[in-house]
Amino acid sequence: MKLLNLDHVAIAVNDLDDALAGYRERYRVEPLYRETVESQGVEEAMIPVGGSFVQLLQPLGPDTPVGRFLDKNGEGLHHVAFAVASIDLALQHLEESGARLVDRSARDGGRGARIAFVHPGDLVGTLIELVELPDA
Amino acid sequence: MKLLNLDHVAIAVNDLDDALAGYRERYRVEPLYRETVESQGVEEAMIPVGGSFVQLLQPLGPDTPVGRFLDKNGEGLHHVAFAVASIDLALQHLEESGARLVDRSARDGGRGARIAFVHPGDLVGTLIELVELPDA
Repeated sequence: MKLLNLDHVAIAVNDLDDALAGYRERYRVEPLYRETVESQGVEEAMIPVGGSFVQLLQPLGPDTPVGRFLDKNGEGLHHVAFAVASIDLALQHLEESGARLVDRSARDGGRGARIAFVHPGDLVGTLIELVELPDA
Repeated sequence: MKLLNLDHVAIAVNDLDDALAGYRERYRVEPLYRETVESQGVEEAMIPVGGSFVQLLQPLGPDTPVGRFLDKNGEGLHHVAFAVASIDLALQHLEESGARLVDRSARDGGRGARIAFVHPGDLVGTLIELVELPDA
């Protein structure tokens, strides 16, 4: 287990275009790209800030994880993602240390990455995503 | 307005020692330092991850901003902080663009930084801290 970087902080939003316009006006930043990730039920935009990203997540429908989050909490911080060199080794360490995992094995995320989530009930109420980037 | 870096993501916790022990066990990371910031009513620890930090915030009492956050929401993601070159110019731009600010002028934060908060009601439900570091 070695955390390489704070890859991104993710924010659940109702309307991706409105959120991007707000970030453009307030903070003069632009998304590097946006993509639909059907497996996670979101359209996402990635705004580079230094060596990290702000990820804006709009659910593809109400019956998705982010849709249910919005229904319960409204817009706001959703999760934080750490880049790791090996997601398989990271998951092995987490499982051995008794962590409460959402994903016991890695799955495909955006950007060609392999990802896995750790349950917010595991540590101080924070949904954590681990990301192994394709060039790691 | 120029965002230089995703400086930190802050997490409100009930017990800083327990939270640090959890991060140590699960993610093999250690705080670079911890300090009490009386003006914000917190004891904070900063865990370096790549070029950013995970900031853990324990309130100094229930009648503080983080104490009230914990009472309402429980432990979890509290705010995200962006480093800027000039916090005075950043606040001027935000005020001119009609942003809803918590702080109209910068105040002293941890690490000798000058900081200001933007209200979560301004943009997609996210409490945003701007940080001008002393070596910026």
